[in-house]
Amino acid sequence: MSATAILLLSCPDQKGIVAEIASFIYQYDGNIVHSDQHTDFETNTFFMRIEWELEGFRIPREKIAQAFSFIADKFRMEWRLVFSDEVPRVAIMVSKFDHCLYDLLLKWQSKEIRMDIPLIVSNHEDLRSVAEYYRIPYFCFPVNAENKKEVEEKEIKLFQDYRIDTVVLARYMQVLSPDFIAVYPNRIINIHHSFLPAFVGAKPYHQAYARGVKLIGATSHYVTEELDNGPIIVQDVIGVSHRDSLSDMINKGKEVEKRVLSRAVKLHVENKVLVFHNKTVVFD
Amino acid sequence: MSATAILLLSCPDQKGIVAEIASFIYQYDGNIVHSDQHTDFETNTFFMRIEWELEGFRIPREKIAQAFSFIADKFRMEWRLVFSDEVPRVAIMVSKFDHCLYDLLLKWQSKEIRMDIPLIVSNHEDLRSVAEYYRIPYFCFPVNAENKKEVEEKEIKLFQDYRIDTVVLARYMQVLSPDFIAVYPNRIINIHHSFLPAFVGAKPYHQAYARGVKLIGATSHYVTEELDNGPIIVQDVIGVSHRDSLSDMINKGKEVEKRVLSRAVKLHVENKVLVFHNKTVVFD
Amino acid sequence: MSATAILLLSCPDQKGIVAEIASFIYQYDGNIVHSDQHTDFETNTFFMRIEWELEGFRIPREKIAQAFSFIADKFRMEWRLVFSDEVPRVAIMVSKFDHCLYDLLLKWQSKEIRMDIPLIVSNHEDLRSVAEYYRIPYFCFPVNAENKKEVEEKEIKLFQDYRIDTVVLARYMQVLSPDFIAVYPNRIINIHHSFLPAFVGAKPYHQAYARGVKLIGATSHYVTEELDNGPIIVQDVIGVSHRDSLSDMINKGKEVEKRVLSRAVKLHVENKVLVFHNKTVVFD
Amino acid sequence: MSATAILLLSCPDQKGIVAEIASFIYQYDGNIVHSDQHTDFETNTFFMRIEWELEGFRIPREKIAQAFSFIADKFRMEWRLVFSDEVPRVAIMVSKFDHCLYDLLLKWQSKEIRMDIPLIVSNHEDLRSVAEYYRIPYFCFPVNAENKKEVEEKEIKLFQDYRIDTVVLARYMQVLSPDFIAVYPNRIINIHHSFLPAFVGAKPYHQAYARGVKLIGATSHYVTEELDNGPIIVQDVIGVSHRDSLSDMINKGKEVEKRVLSRAVKLHVENKVLVFHNKTVVFD
Repeated sequence: MSATAILLLSCPDQKGIVAEIASFIYQYDGNIVHSDQHTDFETNTFFMRIEWELEGFRIPREKIAQAFSFIADKFRMEWRLVFSDEVPRVAIMVSKFDHCLYDLLLKWQSKEIRMDIPLIVSNHEDLRSVAEYYRIPYFCFPVNAENKKEVEEKEIKLFQDYRIDTVVLARYMQVLSPDFIAVYPNRIINIHHSFLPAFVGAKPYHQAYARGVKLIGATSHYVTEELDNGPIIVQDVIGVSHRDSLSDMINKGKEVEKRVLSRAVKLHVENKVLVFHNKTVVFD
Repeated sequence: MSATAILLLSCPDQKGIVAEIASFIYQYDGNIVHSDQHTDFETNTFFMRIEWELEGFRIPREKIAQAFSFIADKFRMEWRLVFSDEVPRVAIMVSKFDHCLYDLLLKWQSKEIRMDIPLIVSNHEDLRSVAEYYRIPYFCFPVNAENKKEVEEKEIKLFQDYRIDTVVLARYMQVLSPDFIAVYPNRIINIHHSFLPAFVGAKPYHQAYARGVKLIGATSHYVTEELDNGPIIVQDVIGVSHRDSLSDMINKGKEVEKRVLSRAVKLHVENKVLVFHNKTVVFD
Repeated sequence: MSATAILLLSCPDQKGIVAEIASFIYQYDGNIVHSDQHTDFETNTFFMRIEWELEGFRIPREKIAQAFSFIADKFRMEWRLVFSDEVPRVAIMVSKFDHCLYDLLLKWQSKEIRMDIPLIVSNHEDLRSVAEYYRIPYFCFPVNAENKKEVEEKEIKLFQDYRIDTVVLARYMQVLSPDFIAVYPNRIINIHHSFLPAFVGAKPYHQAYARGVKLIGATSHYVTEELDNGPIIVQDVIGVSHRDSLSDMINKGKEVEKRVLSRAVKLHVENKVLVFHNKTVVFD
Repeated sequence: MSATAILLLSCPDQKGIVAEIASFIYQYDGNIVHSDQHTDFETNTFFMRIEWELEGFRIPREKIAQAFSFIADKFRMEWRLVFSDEVPRVAIMVSKFDHCLYDLLLKWQSKEIRMDIPLIVSNHEDLRSVAEYYRIPYFCFPVNAENKKEVEEKEIKLFQDYRIDTVVLARYMQVLSPDFIAVYPNRIINIHHSFLPAFVGAKPYHQAYARGVKLIGATSHYVTEELDNGPIIVQDVIGVSHRDSLSDMINKGKEVEKRVLSRAVKLHVENKVLVFHNKTVVFD
């Protein structure tokens, strides 16, 4: 398949939206390869993800946005246009746990997740050798209460130098400040090691063990100012029993964490996630 | 929501299909409430399910098919048009097991599955009282090798008298003849108590128990001439272990069977299933 | 299999417990058919469920407890002895939802759950006809803030008259008072329609919908004084997406609720659940 | 916890087995930390896994087997005795796929699976660099119809030199000969990329895709002479839909394969699996 244009949009629902968009694409000889839409009847909002081949499309890629903006304005759309051959540049932030990092690296290496990983940032040295094996630059910024603001500024600067467009917190054990988050709205993906909104905050497996739950879970979500309360992208669970010690639960949970985070990152970099009212529409 | 028109179609993929269909609906003031499409790149086939409100649509419902047929012909579509307020008439066939029957009746009663059940047909008397409680006519035709042809003719006659459009085999323990099947192509839904294609044929739980599998399953599929080989609509599984006796497996399996069959029937009566090359496209 | 004796016990862990119990059973010619044990290393507590055939056991059933009490005392056990042919007497309490009630009744009828259901109690008349179909006495006590204490006293009296040993709240929409709960410690089983501890309290599906979760769940637990905080017996979940309206979530959730509650009731009446420190040990 | 002795056994069921074993352990001051048993009523066979601390046990470890053999003989047991601090030596065989290999290496590295991996054997050079990163010797033996017998002899020799006791086929794409299998009865673990017994043999994802199944699976089993027909240890599945291309199914399947294989290897090296009549008893 050739490269494609992908349009993601939401707008107040009304008649004629699909007709207008499909006619626009057809009129310039575009071949639609995927299209998915959704209407939220509660808020009367229309959502769409539509993808068509650039090959043969009679508007050059750099002028499509401009050409489409007339339709976008008419329907008061929030929208973005991306191209499938523009590979997202993803920074991974880690602390000491390596399971999510490895899972992302393996899926990146096997091209199962199509992204570039220009750098890995950590507050510890522990995972430097992993980064080196994969020949990815590794930056270590130890963080504490005093230097946090300063470190975050360095990190943002670094991300801008590397033209990062998405940040993945692969069990990064620091809370980002609102200023940091504001630079990457709906572009910082976290993995929380519980079935949110159960067990918000620190040590969720300890909380789960203490409560005696029979399933444990993991939640991948976009980071917002309110801790562990951003739009949820993917969740999954695994069964546990009285036979599982806390350490068994942590091990079982790691399996769930890594597949939940990888699935969320894959959906995100394939431009299949729209955020609306602190929820996600996931076109999978 | 008012009643809707639902169009289900497949055709060779080409440019302009969505534009043409969406423009047709918009041109007559139709309000699309759901739309889902799929392209099979292997066979270059386009599939679509699109649903719009009849209220305000400027073609009367009895003339929509005719109006649309020009587009259908142009793109060489296989298609059908249905209306959401035309409730499907479903005959249920049972033998002695009651779990799938009850599940369907409860979901019918609670309107979770929107269908009429004009009659229940069985080769045994066992479940007559269930039918009576729900005030549904119950017909019993004991079947054997000699009278099979004759009985099936009676059943078909009965289904025609009752204007049945879908037949659900809720653990009906008889194999239907090709002649019977031909009357309801892709309209007879069976539940097979295994994870097909494993354990085709009789006594799948016995086979599963003998093989020592760690999961057992159920498969709902359309009935075709080849036994247990029709297009699969829904499958699900449940874990088992060495602690499960054959009878435990049967009990666990019943839970899976009923939810798999009910889900398949719900998808079918909501016109969300398209059959193509002995597979299904399920717009859920 | 003949009737069996079932011993459930917990005690501080020490050497020789299994040897002593197994020797006791062997010494009187008992044939062990099931045995399961667990040690909680955090609290150094030993748990066991052991089941042996009464046939051929050389202590008459009415004297086993006394004979065993020497061992029990020696190891400071909390224990109970039950017999598999003493079918538990279970009262079901309902309000207006019928799905959990039906599921329990069908599994009772098919002997999948071996229990007696001497009566059904409700605060509404809605489900009387269901009870009548199954020929189970139905008592309706409308409850309000004023008469609550009085109604609960009547209910307890009724349960005692009917020699009820377990109460199942099959979507009973009233909070029981501490006085009521104290009569049936770890013998009142509730189904909460969320994945506890997420969404405690009223309208969990509304909360789940508002939060935008990707899985919804149900939790069956013993009722304790603290709302929705008793020992969890069974939990399960089902996937949801942005396509699921609140009402879709409620319907999907009903499926999970009924299988979670039925599984918990089955485990309980088969004497497979031990409560310890507000958690359960489930010998399944 | 100190090192433990683990006894795995099966024998014709009769009275007194548990009493005798538990008394044996208690008599020599053993502290039981885990015990699990199972009776297969169809064949009247008793199975047990019992684990006790070596510290304080008054028989030295090298004499336990001899001491126990009297009991074993009396009850005609098949049994084995292992010690938790004797870490199993596992050879991994691979071809070109790396996902299962990586998953095993990561769980070995994090000590989630306690085993030694003295060598990796392949019929291709592709994964040598992975082995080198983990500093594990890598042997490459290209196999063809002519040299198969000779290569297998070399491999067996190598395994004997390295004192290998378990062989894991982590997507090794060659069928082992009966002679090879005979050297490691119930000690060669394979991952088959389908839900057995569905899709035996080559290209199971292609078969699954062609059949239009709605779930795909993976099966880990011991290798026996009959292809893909050995005792099943672990199975799991994942949902697929018409939207999944063959390549999507392969990617989704890889996730299932690796977690199924890792779980099976973990159970095996923790001595939790007993084989009986081509099935497994898994004490998890």
